[in-house]
Amino acid sequence: MPSGWPPVPDGSPFPVTNLPYGVAAPAGEPARVVVPIGTHALDLAAVARSGLLSGTLPDPVAAFAADTLDGLLGAGPAGWAAVRTRLRELLDETPSEHLSGALLPLAGLQPALPFTVADYVDFYSSLDHATNVGRIFRPDADPLPANWRWQPLGYHGRAGTVVVSGTPVRRPIGQWRPPGAQEPVVGPTEKLDVEVEVAYVVGVPTDPGQRVAADDFRDHVFGVVLLNDWSARDIQSWEYQPLGPFLGKSFATTISPWVVPLDALDAARVPPPAQDPQPAAHLRCSGDWAFDLALELEINGTVVARPPYASTYWTMPQQLAHATSNGARLRTGDLFASGTVSGHDRQQWGSLLELSWNGRDPLPLGDGSSRTYLEDGDQVVIRATAPGADGTRIGFGDCAGAVLPAR
Amino acid sequence: MPSGWPPVPDGSPFPVTNLPYGVAAPAGEPARVVVPIGTHALDLAAVARSGLLSGTLPDPVAAFAADTLDGLLGAGPAGWAAVRTRLRELLDETPSEHLSGALLPLAGLQPALPFTVADYVDFYSSLDHATNVGRIFRPDADPLPANWRWQPLGYHGRAGTVVVSGTPVRRPIGQWRPPGAQEPVVGPTEKLDVEVEVAYVVGVPTDPGQRVAADDFRDHVFGVVLLNDWSARDIQSWEYQPLGPFLGKSFATTISPWVVPLDALDAARVPPPAQDPQPAAHLRCSGDWAFDLALELEINGTVVARPPYASTYWTMPQQLAHATSNGARLRTGDLFASGTVSGHDRQQWGSLLELSWNGRDPLPLGDGSSRTYLEDGDQVVIRATAPGADGTRIGFGDCAGAVLPAR
Repeated sequence: MPSGWPPVPDGSPFPVTNLPYGVAAPAGEPARVVVPIGTHALDLAAVARSGLLSGTLPDPVAAFAADTLDGLLGAGPAGWAAVRTRLRELLDETPSEHLSGALLPLAGLQPALPFTVADYVDFYSSLDHATNVGRIFRPDADPLPANWRWQPLGYHGRAGTVVVSGTPVRRPIGQWRPPGAQEPVVGPTEKLDVEVEVAYVVGVPTDPGQRVAADDFRDHVFGVVLLNDWSARDIQSWEYQPLGPFLGKSFATTISPWVVPLDALDAARVPPPAQDPQPAAHLRCSGDWAFDLALELEINGTVVARPPYASTYWTMPQQLAHATSNGARLRTGDLFASGTVSGHDRQQWGSLLELSWNGRDPLPLGDGSSRTYLEDGDQVVIRATAPGADGTRIGFGDCAGAVLPAR
Repeated sequence: MPSGWPPVPDGSPFPVTNLPYGVAAPAGEPARVVVPIGTHALDLAAVARSGLLSGTLPDPVAAFAADTLDGLLGAGPAGWAAVRTRLRELLDETPSEHLSGALLPLAGLQPALPFTVADYVDFYSSLDHATNVGRIFRPDADPLPANWRWQPLGYHGRAGTVVVSGTPVRRPIGQWRPPGAQEPVVGPTEKLDVEVEVAYVVGVPTDPGQRVAADDFRDHVFGVVLLNDWSARDIQSWEYQPLGPFLGKSFATTISPWVVPLDALDAARVPPPAQDPQPAAHLRCSGDWAFDLALELEINGTVVARPPYASTYWTMPQQLAHATSNGARLRTGDLFASGTVSGHDRQQWGSLLELSWNGRDPLPLGDGSSRTYLEDGDQVVIRATAPGADGTRIGFGDCAGAVLPAR
């Protein structure tokens, strides 16, 4: 960038090779679309009003003055590329005084939910996670369900309870049956957990009956967020047969505030794990569609796990091809999450269910305390970095939430 | 009604004691909110423009010129009652020539999806249906899951594929493992099924963390529709362990075009079945919250089943109290369905899975053919009537769809 721009500090998750999008409000002002760069954020509503985004989207002023990214998401790959290219040109060539009114200190912004979540689907795509869960709950059986290697299993979650990072999460009340008991009890969950996940957001919808080929993933998907699929393990264990997770998950799902475009993640793409058996034809995909995201899970300031997203068995294009293989249409804002990301080793496991082995092995924290599951007041943060262009390292911002006591 | 109004024919599902709401477009015109009465429909956009709905909602012209019921749904019980009361006054007292421009022939209207579906939840609330499913799939075990009598089991379906009656449904392609096979196959489902259901629509949202008491059901719920939860049994059977139904359900869900207000169903309320064991405190409810809806399932002109909705074990208020017991917030447009409604006797079963006992017992149709599951071109209609006020019988309109061949 030319001199005059605020410098991007070393280690910032937002170098100019990133340029993620979010929605945020300066104090006392309405939310608008912004792009974080270093310690600041470019106010795209202001940039668009100055005419500098003309020709990128049909109506950039309306799209960026909105309090969601929905207009940008629906613009499709040509519009996404046009805006990103123009932003790079502006950052490279425009003296900062021309944009000074459009540069906001990042620390003063209150991020909002960045897009209207249409449907929310959560997969179960990590082999190590699925294996751990099987070992914990079905110790005498094959840990993997018979269908697991044949298709990316998933279920629909509650779109209306997806919240942006920073939103407190209240401990849910629910019903479960204690071990050995005949009858269930009702009360605040005693097994409040997190799931470290990576999710993607659909921009371009499909028609009913249309199936998205895995190789057409990029025609529909805009970008990536981090996701915490908060879970109440006691409620979930009692309810999930035969209809799957419901109230054990539906109380809250947190996403990171910045949507990182697929274009920013090209340098992070790596070959996915080998798959055996070979998937059905519509689930095969060319190209390197794993992403080398280094995740971390932090509780009360202690990093308790570093799950490697690149080890995830089922890739994003395979998940999308599966989800649309029955002709179910996509809408702008559809959110698809990976399921818990866990690697092979214990320090790579992305849930307390695994890290504490369902409460058997308490997990030490840096303050001398330990956790099996979350306590009231606990602060949970999920972060990730990934290789960006030009040797940079890019990030997503915190996916954070604190636990409020049950009401 | 005074003379001059078009008469309501005997047997019409839309006497003046009903007054359901929908969204429909006359040929070549935009959709607007309408209320079917006999063979006609009152164009509420036109009525509102004439000023006759002033004082009912804050902006009746905007609410009823919209192409969804969302504005009406969000108005809450006082607004719903004000509009209904005013419509009854207009119908009783206004000479028809004053409203002649607002009366449209029902046969010329194209109904649209009546509201924006926020989240869609499907329950499993019929004891006879759950028992039949258990007997079919787990013949050697207790047919009811251990949790079934303790809570109304449910799962989230795909809101984006809820369609209005009349929308054709394409046979989905999917993956399943044939009996005895080692590996799954991929192809058009061979077990396309229907589920006869009754659903309700939320009008008034809640705050995150708020739990809706069963006795507060009416403060949040606007009305009732019929629902067909199309299902691919082969796909569902292979995928549902451990995360529940996903692609076996997500391709399409049909609802009837008219939302019948709870106020129109007061005469249909009857005591629910006895429950044993007694449910937890938050699932108890005073008042008669079963509804005496007489459902029928018709395939290619033959009525194949008459499921009795009043026999449903878990009531609507219990379902809503359960779904919000963990603090999950409600949004305007949330849709909650009963799950398949089945009575005790075979002619009361609401799915082909049960009626054909998963293909063992073909079902004869009036044209001499028979069905185990649906064939391409089949026409499915779900209907219902219920007691209305003043000794009338009210209905919901057809919940219909035809099967298109796989693409």
